[in-house]
This record gives sequence, C-alpha cells and structure tokens, in this order.
Amino acid sequence: MKPKLQSPPSFEDISWVHQNIQSLIHRTPVMSCESLNQITGAQLFFKCENFQKIGAFKTRGASSAALFLTEAERKAGLATHSSGNHAQAVALTAQRQGMKAYIVMPDSSPAPKIAATKGYGAELFFCENTIEARQQKLEEVVARTGATFIHPFDDYHVIAGQATAAKELIEDTDGLDIVIAPIGGGGLMSGTALISKYLMPKAKVFGAEPRIVDDAFRSVKSGKVEVNTRIDTIADGLRTNLSEKTFDIISRQVDQIFTVTEEEIIQAMRLIWERMKLVIEPSSAVPFAAVLSHPASFRGQKIGIILTGGNVDLDRLPWIK
Amino acid sequence: MKPKLQSPPSFEDISWVHQNIQSLIHRTPVMSCESLNQITGAQLFFKCENFQKIGAFKTRGASSAALFLTEAERKAGLATHSSGNHAQAVALTAQRQGMKAYIVMPDSSPAPKIAATKGYGAELFFCENTIEARQQKLEEVVARTGATFIHPFDDYHVIAGQATAAKELIEDTDGLDIVIAPIGGGGLMSGTALISKYLMPKAKVFGAEPRIVDDAFRSVKSGKVEVNTRIDTIADGLRTNLSEKTFDIISRQVDQIFTVTEEEIIQAMRLIWERMKLVIEPSSAVPFAAVLSHPASFRGQKIGIILTGGNVDLDRLPWIK
Repeated sequence: MKPKLQSPPSFEDISWVHQNIQSLIHRTPVMSCESLNQITGAQLFFKCENFQKIGAFKTRGASSAALFLTEAERKAGLATHSSGNHAQAVALTAQRQGMKAYIVMPDSSPAPKIAATKGYGAELFFCENTIEARQQKLEEVVARTGATFIHPFDDYHVIAGQATAAKELIEDTDGLDIVIAPIGGGGLMSGTALISKYLMPKAKVFGAEPRIVDDAFRSVKSGKVEVNTRIDTIADGLRTNLSEKTFDIISRQVDQIFTVTEEEIIQAMRLIWERMKLVIEPSSAVPFAAVLSHPASFRGQKIGIILTGGNVDLDRLPWIK
Repeated sequence: MKPKLQSPPSFEDISWVHQNIQSLIHRTPVMSCESLNQITGAQLFFKCENFQKIGAFKTRGASSAALFLTEAERKAGLATHSSGNHAQAVALTAQRQGMKAYIVMPDSSPAPKIAATKGYGAELFFCENTIEARQQKLEEVVARTGATFIHPFDDYHVIAGQATAAKELIEDTDGLDIVIAPIGGGGLMSGTALISKYLMPKAKVFGAEPRIVDDAFRSVKSGKVEVNTRIDTIADGLRTNLSEKTFDIISRQVDQIFTVTEEEIIQAMRLIWERMKLVIEPSSAVPFAAVLSHPASFRGQKIGIILTGGNVDLDRLPWIK
C-alpha cells in the first residue's frame, strides 16, 4: 500500500505507478506518417491511445488511482460521474480488480456508452444532464455505498496515471523537441507536462484547446481558473473547465496553449483518418489541428502528439452533413 | 539481377523478395482485440496492411515485380491499368527507384485516386471504364513507351511480393491454426496460401469472397476459371476474376473458400472500425465477415487475418444511408 499523494506526482511517483499498472493497460504504439510529416514540415510521433483499453487514455488514470486505495476502500468500491471515457475506465478498473463500480450518468447519455459501461459490470445511476444533478446524485451514491469517488482529473493519482502515456511516448522515441496534448479538465495535460519536464527539461510542452472552450488559455493568462461560457465544441472530451490542481500544474509547466477552430479540428481529424487509417475522436485531433494552423511554431521540430482516444459515433461523422 | 520466375514462387523466392523489398515497404504491425476475440470465441491476429505504404498491401507486389526487371526494362519504366491501389503501388514503386510510370485509369476514377497517383509522379492516361478500353489503351502506351506491364495479380513476381504480408504475420505470431485472406484477382490469396503452407504445413488456409462476386468459389468447384456476372459488391477491391496462374495456385493450396453477404461485410467492417479503431476498406472486412458468419469453422482457433487496406471514401460510409 502506497501513501496517498499530497502534491503533484514526482518522477518517482509516476515511475512507480507506471510499473504497477502494466498489467492493466496496453503499451500503445507510437506511429508516424510520411505524408503528414510532408504536410507539416515536421517529424510527428503519434501516441495511439485510441488503441488503449476502453479506447482512450483514461484507463491509465483510473488504474493508477486504484493503486492508492486502502483495503477498506477497495472493499467499498469506486464511484464517479461521467458520460464518457472516464466512466468506462473506472468500470473496467473495478471489474479487473474485483471491486464494485457505481457510475452516475446523465439520462441523455448515448445508448452505446451506457451499454459499454454496463458491460464492464458497473452499477449505473441516472440523473439530469447538469453538473449540479450529477454531483448531487454522486453524493447520494457515495453516502449510501461508501465508495471512493475517482475524480476524472482533479486528483494527483489520476494525473500520475495519465502521465504514463507521455512517459511511454518519450521512451519509445529518440528525443523530442515538443510534446503536445489536448486540454479538457487538464489531467492528461498536467501529467504530460510533469513527465516531459522531468525527462526532457529542454523540450517545450504545449497544450491545445478548441477556441470556443478556451478556459485553460484564459486561465493561464488571468492567473486563476476561468470557466467556459459555452460548451458546443465538437471535441466533446474537452468541454470541462480546469480544476485548482490542474490549473496549478499547467500554469507552471506548460509553455504555451494554442487554440483552434471547429473547422480546423474537423480537418485535422479527417486527415488522420485518411492518411494514418486511425479512428480517433474529435478531441484527439485538437493538438494536430494546432500544428497545422500554427506552422511557424512547429516546422522542423520533432513533435510528440498524444492521440487521446477513438470512441466516436460512427453514425455521425462531422464532415458528412 | 534475378532471373524471372517461370513457376509459382518457392519459399526461397519469397524469402529473397522479402529481404530485397525491405526498404520499400513497412513491416506493418499485427494487432489483436480482446472484444473481437470474445465475440468470435477465437484468437484473432490482424495483419494491418491498411498501414502499408499507399494504404494497402499492393506495394509489396509492385516492389517485388521491380526486383526482376533488366536494366533495359528499368530504363523504359512501368505500366499498368488500375483505378485503385495497384495504380498507386506501381506509381510509388517507380518513383522510389527513379523509373517512369504510365498508368491507364478509367476517366470515371475518383478525383482523390487520380490526385494520389499523379502525386507519385506517374503519367496518367484516361480511357472508358471497360476492360476492353483499358487493355487497348494499355497496349498503346506499352507500344509507344516500351514500359513493362505490371499485372495486378497474374504475375509470379507480384504473387511473391504479396506473400510477404502473410510471411510477416506468421513470423510475428506464435503459431496459427488458420490463415484467411480475401480473394479478388487472387494475387494476395495465392501468395498467402503458398507461404502459409511452406511455413506451417498443418495450418488451414482459407479464402473469403463477397457472395455476389463468388468467382473463386465457383472456379474451385468447377475446376476452371469462372467469371462474375455482376460486380456490384461494396468490396470494390474484390470484383476481379481469377487468372489462370492464381486459379492454379488457389485450387491446389486453399483449403476452403467462404462467401459472405454485403450486410455481413458492412457489419464486419463497422466492428473493426468501432472496436479496433482501424480505418479499413470494405474488401479488408471480408475475411472477418467470414469468421463471424461461419462460427463453427473458427471457434477456438488461432486465426491470422490479413487486413488488406484502408483506402476508403470517408464521405460515404456504407452504414450511413
């Protein structure tokens, strides 16, 4: 049993987590693509977390959080609220380790996501699709079951797990000038920035955000957590605001945040499908969209890009009207 | 300079080809997927030729054919007729080796395929979309240029190249009970069958075809090359009939040919996109469709499946009406 982390994970914390979640995650491949290198004039290395268990990097964070539970906590199980990849990640993590999982989902969640989460043996609770309703329902569930709430990003253990994606990316490439990840709640970005600075102090760490949910960009500028006033981006994994923990890490460790338009996200997503033959979700395309739309910042560089996931509604592709 | 092959490639021929095309092809990954294993009750190993250069296995055959050219032939260049992956493979092969490529394409070919083939520096010639018009135009081009016609499949050198996909698949897995590939003109199937029987004499080699272009199935039954009377399958890479050379190899070496419906192809394709996050073209889904629709022949087996390519029109997905 490892004591719970009280501060941003150190290199040793991330390494320990990485070693101990090996059996719960895939070491996903790093892929490159000559034609995208030509288009960008850069050398791009894509970390394919779309091939991760449950189809997204979130398995890393949930697996990591479970490492820090006491025996009593393990017996009571895990809880979270999410309509997306984090719900499936918590459900899978619990199932693989013989724990119970209690997941609060908005009753408007797509049927396949509900089915997938149920498929991992989780008990589901439905609520209205507001932050308040979710939190209230979650509090009820936690009060009744004693389960441990696994926050999707405002949690150092989760951040340590998400850091392992960039750790593998760095280990499996031969030196990078830039590492870039998308920013939603900031868990992946925080982990990516920490490990990149530990392992490659001279490399730049960039974040990328849809312009219409540019809370991280504005937060870093103003020096406090800003919130989004609209969330209608196609990049549904990036609608969340930063938390105090992720804001603190990102504002110290991330060198620059780029914002991109919806059209740029769609074009970048399509290019990756077409040239790399990879199914990725819109959120995954945001860093590559930043590379395409800010060429002067990237040309000639060796760039590690985290493709965060591939869970997309195949019935509704954004370029098909 | 290697003498031209006068008979089906031996193990030594295929190994020599494989060694000598290394710099022209990618060694593509073999991927597996827990949820597809669960659905089928089998262990599936997918050889991802959608990640091959030009997005399909055809690069192997064209690269192989180029190895057997005389100096005079190399100077005169390569020619072929194709609206699809073979055209791009021949064009790329020529470009990489400083040869000229002359490609005859139907004037109805999709703009992206025309652009891609031109992008590899080939000279294009357009004709009506009939077999006769293509052949006539090709003969004109060959007569004028002296270029060597690289047939897409009725060519032992091409067959030897296509065999290298299954060779890598077998080398990168730990024993297979079954290897299965789709059958169009039969070049990939012939190469796959030869190398599989050389390396794993006890393994079964299966072919898979869309039911509405089941010429190979009927040919093996009747003992002579049968032709398709309709070609309106979604699996556009598999509309071609066998040739004498491929029929001869397939009728001796392939243990069984399965046929599948269009609906089964679409479902199999979608499952691979959804669960494996791989963009594959419809032809690639045909062997997996056979596994899904003939469970008794596959359950409990270790199965190598060749995913042939990923060049698909992203504006028109078959499950979106």
